[in-house]
Amino acid sequence: MNKNEPKNIDSRIIFPKGQKIENDYFIGTVWVETLVSSDSIFNCAISNVTFEPGARNNWHKHPGGQILLITGGKGYYQEEGQPVHIIKEGDVVKIQPGVKHWHGATQNSWLSHIAITTNSQKGAVEWMEPVSDEYYLQLMVEEKYA
Amino acid sequence: MNKNEPKNIDSRIIFPKGQKIENDYFIGTVWVETLVSSDSIFNCAISNVTFEPGARNNWHKHPGGQILLITGGKGYYQEEGQPVHIIKEGDVVKIQPGVKHWHGATQNSWLSHIAITTNSQKGAVEWMEPVSDEYYLQLMVEEKYA
Repeated sequence: MNKNEPKNIDSRIIFPKGQKIENDYFIGTVWVETLVSSDSIFNCAISNVTFEPGARNNWHKHPGGQILLITGGKGYYQEEGQPVHIIKEGDVVKIQPGVKHWHGATQNSWLSHIAITTNSQKGAVEWMEPVSDEYYLQLMVEEKYA
Repeated sequence: MNKNEPKNIDSRIIFPKGQKIENDYFIGTVWVETLVSSDSIFNCAISNVTFEPGARNNWHKHPGGQILLITGGKGYYQEEGQPVHIIKEGDVVKIQPGVKHWHGATQNSWLSHIAITTNSQKGAVEWMEPVSDEYYLQLMVEEKYA
């Protein structure tokens, strides 16, 4: 384990952590390993994604939907206009096509999930605005006093 | 862990083991937990499958293909007319639509995988003949002396 490893990462990481994501659609440190690239035979793309504590993606939509299999840690999942849900190892999240949402780790835990982008022939993810620190840190306060 | 648990099952089982399969398309003891049922929105069905040592499925085909994410243990995967491949934790197997194949545990190890049935709108699995004891046990001999 090197110094860049999330401090509470454990042996439940089965697939490679992959490469650090270097784009503007994430806040914090996130790694991704592509397990299956999108093609016209399977119409399905699969990645292993690991969020460090505090890391999350921007609000976004998938034209063909996405399914998350949570494989480790604890995080947040929220759809626009809905409450935030805590997600944890063993959970399955079905994200309907076109629904605006975001997901990521909690402030105190890493989060690892397999992301299965279904109907990938319907087009690429549409990225939107970030989940601000102001909003995200407030979730922590709410969780602590819930 | 109860007495029905594979003797070398370990903590890497993230999703429930589910129910014992009771049909004629498997030899040995196999459990399945449905994580996502097939529907017309995602066109994708996802199951967690656990094979006890010595267990395997019959030869079969998927009209829309299937992807296996191997999450624990060690097993075999074979396509018709091709050599047998050893599969193990962390491997990804892409099964092309319509290709006749089988998979299962080795004789000395359990095998756990997530099965992602892609393009599920193209129809259900087509089951064929079993992988006989005579054939399967011979694979063990070949592995031992390879």
